[in-house]
Amino acid sequence: MTAGDDEGSFESPVGPGARIAVLGVGLIGGSVALAARERLGARVSGWDPVPHAPEVAVARAALDEAAPDAASAVREADAVVVAAPVGAVHDVLTAALAAVPEDAVVTDVASTKGSLVAAVGDRRYIGGHPLAGAEVAGVEHARADLFDGATWYLTPREGASGILFERLHRVVAGLGAVPSAIRPEVHDRLMAAFSHLPHVVANALVAQAADALGDEAIPATGPSFRDMTRVAGANPPLWASIYGANREALLTSLDGLIERLGTARDLLAAGDGVESWQADSGRRRRALLDVGLTGGALSEVRAVVPNRPGVIADLALTLSRAGINIHDMSLSPSPDGRSGEVALWVADVHADRARELVEEVLG
Amino acid sequence: MTAGDDEGSFESPVGPGARIAVLGVGLIGGSVALAARERLGARVSGWDPVPHAPEVAVARAALDEAAPDAASAVREADAVVVAAPVGAVHDVLTAALAAVPEDAVVTDVASTKGSLVAAVGDRRYIGGHPLAGAEVAGVEHARADLFDGATWYLTPREGASGILFERLHRVVAGLGAVPSAIRPEVHDRLMAAFSHLPHVVANALVAQAADALGDEAIPATGPSFRDMTRVAGANPPLWASIYGANREALLTSLDGLIERLGTARDLLAAGDGVESWQADSGRRRRALLDVGLTGGALSEVRAVVPNRPGVIADLALTLSRAGINIHDMSLSPSPDGRSGEVALWVADVHADRARELVEEVLG
Repeated sequence: MTAGDDEGSFESPVGPGARIAVLGVGLIGGSVALAARERLGARVSGWDPVPHAPEVAVARAALDEAAPDAASAVREADAVVVAAPVGAVHDVLTAALAAVPEDAVVTDVASTKGSLVAAVGDRRYIGGHPLAGAEVAGVEHARADLFDGATWYLTPREGASGILFERLHRVVAGLGAVPSAIRPEVHDRLMAAFSHLPHVVANALVAQAADALGDEAIPATGPSFRDMTRVAGANPPLWASIYGANREALLTSLDGLIERLGTARDLLAAGDGVESWQADSGRRRRALLDVGLTGGALSEVRAVVPNRPGVIADLALTLSRAGINIHDMSLSPSPDGRSGEVALWVADVHADRARELVEEVLG
Repeated sequence: MTAGDDEGSFESPVGPGARIAVLGVGLIGGSVALAARERLGARVSGWDPVPHAPEVAVARAALDEAAPDAASAVREADAVVVAAPVGAVHDVLTAALAAVPEDAVVTDVASTKGSLVAAVGDRRYIGGHPLAGAEVAGVEHARADLFDGATWYLTPREGASGILFERLHRVVAGLGAVPSAIRPEVHDRLMAAFSHLPHVVANALVAQAADALGDEAIPATGPSFRDMTRVAGANPPLWASIYGANREALLTSLDGLIERLGTARDLLAAGDGVESWQADSGRRRRALLDVGLTGGALSEVRAVVPNRPGVIADLALTLSRAGINIHDMSLSPSPDGRSGEVALWVADVHADRARELVEEVLG
């Protein structure tokens, strides 16, 4: 391995003594910091633009060190997690990348990824997005177990560094989450359909129901209505910025839904095939919930990989698309540094398919 | 009070010794029967078209008596509850009304009311609909506490008998539910918006999400998606018949939603006013959930009412529309039988308004 090689070194400093920086220590950043200290044994520095917020995080044992600015926080970091509000992520990422070491990985937790990955050209940046959160905000609600079992998307760009991807993968798994590699545009399409669109629909359902109620004050909300509208009106400034950040994918998804509702209207008006439509919906939902839930014992899949940018991320993306979770991952360099051996732990039932896919990617 | 008077007698046999018949002893009918025996001390007879179902209900202590047919079950009943599937309700109601005593009240539990109330001309019929149920079916899942605290709509027709309405009100309250009087067409409009439409939307959301996922097998279902689609594909034969029974109101509601989503699309595309739209949705949802939730101590509101058809139902409908729950109700005849005194128990905070409304109705 030579200095300046894009792949960097196959050594991956994640674990006791690793240095992690967290920029933005609210609920998510604070929980990352707590879990990194408790579970990875990492040394965590942090910064937040809110006055005294880093000191509060130190007092709550989330941070080892409160930094006066983003640059000081990241200067010696192995990994940086930017947990800033959607609208501020780009600026904080830029500040972090200007000060972070050459061999560090920088990620964020914003709920849309396409525009960030396109805008941040730095090879050390790999987007991320944990499917975790809470109704409450602020470091005072941070918990080391916030990410336990949660899907945490990683969106490596084309040709991303394998060493940095593997490091981020291990950090995320070490926090308790289940890392899942995904292309940025697919991520945004899925978030539009599985999260942002349901939020918009909940608002519309509430408005429709309020209109039906009119000026009567009769109780009409049963459990299914409460469930379906739980997210109506969630955190207005946050959600206004989320809708805006993923506008194109959201509008496409909303157009699709409006068309589907028109089709459903025709079906219901004709009264024909309604029962099988209903049954199909149930099957479809169960299939969606089953995705990624396969558990069971783990198998190790090993392969020798060339030391070239992007190969590890390609492997991760390919397995992820096939519904195969990489529960753990390690990279070991060959003596001459020209290649490395990757070990992937996947569910037993997926091992054969994973081996085939690994061969396809490397072949 | 003279024989043949439409109002019947002001005496109301609900309580120990009352005779209640349940036609259809599945989850709902079985739970009505259990609660009527345990809580009202009623003697409960029952019938079900499924072979041996009444005997099973007797064995489970839900019924005192298994009847060989609907007519035998209801012949001596003070109150009859028809808990048949939506498609069979009309026929079972007709059979019950042909055999039930002249002074009995007959109700049902179907989730749409307008067409039934229009089709069943008998003065002894007062529609009903409890907002309760479970994912499971069958008398083996019946529970005496199934209706505890649940809204139970009563849909008296124009000019309904006060004595029969009061008796049904007391039966329903005695089962643990909160009776709420409502006009049949308003009931169907509210059910369309608060229940049937959300079920249709859940199906469409699932289809949209499955389409977004395509052939990738990446986990994408978070808690909000699971909540919003919990009812997708629920019980296909049941829901196909519910959509059909309330078709007109459902289509109107669906058209309204499609229009609202189009408006939301324009708003999101323009990116203007999104935050206040989101905030309005939250306020609107809280207001909907608050309806009918006012608790606190009870006050008694008394009034002398003329012995004419419809007056008690009018009082109940008027208070209900104003968001005032009648927690308990009793009717006592004057010595000459030409009028009666009604006592209504409502929340303290509602007592003054209730008195005004009672005066308006009686004035």
